[in-house]
Amino acid sequence: MKATVLHRGQLRVEEVPDPVPGPGQVLVEVAHCGICGSDLHARHHGDATAELARAVGYDDFLRSEQHVVLGHEFSGRVLGYGPRTRRTWKEGQPLVALPILQVDGAPQLTGLAAPAPGGYAERVLVQEAFALPVPDDVPLDVAALTEPMAVALHAVRRGGVGRTDTAVVIGCGPIGLAVIAMLKASGRRTVVASDLSPRRRELALACGADVVVDPGVESPWEQPAATRGSIALPDLLTLGLSTTDRLRRVPLLPWWEVFKVANRLGATPGGPVVFECVGVPGIIDQIVMSAPARSRVVVVGVCMEADSFQPAMAINKELDLRFAFGYDPGEFAETLRLIADGRVDPRLLITGGVGLAGVDAAFAALGDPETHAKILVDPTLGGDEVVPA
Amino acid sequence: MKATVLHRGQLRVEEVPDPVPGPGQVLVEVAHCGICGSDLHARHHGDATAELARAVGYDDFLRSEQHVVLGHEFSGRVLGYGPRTRRTWKEGQPLVALPILQVDGAPQLTGLAAPAPGGYAERVLVQEAFALPVPDDVPLDVAALTEPMAVALHAVRRGGVGRTDTAVVIGCGPIGLAVIAMLKASGRRTVVASDLSPRRRELALACGADVVVDPGVESPWEQPAATRGSIALPDLLTLGLSTTDRLRRVPLLPWWEVFKVANRLGATPGGPVVFECVGVPGIIDQIVMSAPARSRVVVVGVCMEADSFQPAMAINKELDLRFAFGYDPGEFAETLRLIADGRVDPRLLITGGVGLAGVDAAFAALGDPETHAKILVDPTLGGDEVVPA
Repeated sequence: MKATVLHRGQLRVEEVPDPVPGPGQVLVEVAHCGICGSDLHARHHGDATAELARAVGYDDFLRSEQHVVLGHEFSGRVLGYGPRTRRTWKEGQPLVALPILQVDGAPQLTGLAAPAPGGYAERVLVQEAFALPVPDDVPLDVAALTEPMAVALHAVRRGGVGRTDTAVVIGCGPIGLAVIAMLKASGRRTVVASDLSPRRRELALACGADVVVDPGVESPWEQPAATRGSIALPDLLTLGLSTTDRLRRVPLLPWWEVFKVANRLGATPGGPVVFECVGVPGIIDQIVMSAPARSRVVVVGVCMEADSFQPAMAINKELDLRFAFGYDPGEFAETLRLIADGRVDPRLLITGGVGLAGVDAAFAALGDPETHAKILVDPTLGGDEVVPA
Repeated sequence: MKATVLHRGQLRVEEVPDPVPGPGQVLVEVAHCGICGSDLHARHHGDATAELARAVGYDDFLRSEQHVVLGHEFSGRVLGYGPRTRRTWKEGQPLVALPILQVDGAPQLTGLAAPAPGGYAERVLVQEAFALPVPDDVPLDVAALTEPMAVALHAVRRGGVGRTDTAVVIGCGPIGLAVIAMLKASGRRTVVASDLSPRRRELALACGADVVVDPGVESPWEQPAATRGSIALPDLLTLGLSTTDRLRRVPLLPWWEVFKVANRLGATPGGPVVFECVGVPGIIDQIVMSAPARSRVVVVGVCMEADSFQPAMAINKELDLRFAFGYDPGEFAETLRLIADGRVDPRLLITGGVGLAGVDAAFAALGDPETHAKILVDPTLGGDEVVPA
């Protein structure tokens, strides 16, 4: 079959061996496969990522000298089954799957490891136990976004965002946009989104952000009153105090009043929940220095280099840095349900499609935030250019 | 009155003006005042700390060119009252107080800011509303440790440590020891403590640690089975899974299995709760690189320099870094109750006493972990040497 193969940073369409489903596996015809920030990372930082993965016990993350088929955000249709399967679905059944494949008894990351080729290909293998049928009314391009939307759902859960918390999303790339959509889908009241790009801010509003901020011009920390909704500061304050008052036996003068941040969000004991969706060196320190006291910062953006920050400032403000990675199978399944029920609409994120021969051009196009957010690889498309959605 | 005054890094006993209680304030005769790591920091890093404090809205943190009386962990007896007080207690009543003083309407950090001189002195001012009477059967040297023990209680709460979680305490200085004592006081089952110093490990055992580890020789991450208690791995595993199973609708193969850490603690979805009580550059990165997946890391040690770490590793492991600072008034009051009820015994931490003239010698002595943990200043003591407890 044809597949787009990564080798030493180069992406080329090659003829590769047809995948043969092993025990418990399903052969799937790829309909759509999203290009993920992790794929862009893997192209240039694969060896560094592999070292980090090895340090936590996973030895097979892709390396630059290998030939690897990327792609872990895919949808497709059942073509056939391997041995020891329940053959749960008919041929042609649309499905999505967790990008995890059991190979020789060990779990492998589909599309990020040589033993489990990914979805930039005509066909891909999935584990029957990790696949989910796509409901009839969900188009397969939208279904392909189950995976990145699940990352966002997991990040929102990692943040423990309450319905009345203010959420601040820093960076409106595909994951930032997915986080915004998931926050609003789960009924969170005020979402402030920040991005340097006007196009990305426009997409953020489309995904449900209440306020968008150009961080080159204004501060994301001073926006909560200017919302489309009805939230006002006294409300936040009252809610914050009521949750902590039961701990108090002596009059109220907490430390965070002493070190109170000179802005309105900082006056709440709870602080906002911040989603770091940029992933470049220095952004964590910027957030530590500028975020209000008591912020919970969910780090979703993957920074592949060593990064520096001021721990003393994080202590002064009692920040949480909660690092988020992936999702669990329940979150993946819940994401598909949220999409099927129309509670989130990932179509807003899709800005283009491309054939296998255009993956290299698509990687380049994704460097410009004014043009693209999520590009889907469609193996049936010809040509090597990105087609706008 | 006499007080030990810090000026340009020098500590000298000087005759200073007698404090006069203002509105809502109580004049207190100092019985004991603990020397805190923050005091050691303030001596040499005061200006840097002042800059960080200013950045979060507190302008009066001490600076090296000022003359400041340190000391914020004190106990004492009521000498008199200022205007607009309720005169709640008789003269001579033993008490402790939050080290926060209202000066000209603004809260000030007692013992860390020039407007609110601290407890390295014959007398100190406290706010009547922030003072608590010390029960008769609690000696005043022990009561002086209410403040650092409250820091530990707050850190334990920040960690959200469940009774069945394994806690790993990195660094057994006074705060590390206090964290160990508070963990055991609140019924936490397995506490692993790590310190390079044999004396500190001995103190850690005395404070209730189940296992102590010399990190130069062995790993703190591989000790949970060798406990004095009865916890074993299947127990941890079962507990971990039961809390997440309700989220699952498809068979279990979570990401943390893929990136499983090659040790036993790492096999639990919950990971241990780690208390970073060292506060030197590099320790956060060491923990990020070596801690099991899903660890919650409570950062209690104050590192005053910029620090560097690998965010990608923190993401791979889904770590939490929860920065902890101080306590709230309810936690301070609860700490005094825990001491009065005999549920924690801070006396274990007290290794020496010293008069006002010996503060400089005591600061030097605290540099050697083999000799001292907590030294209490007692203004009635003569001489300039530290007296072992």
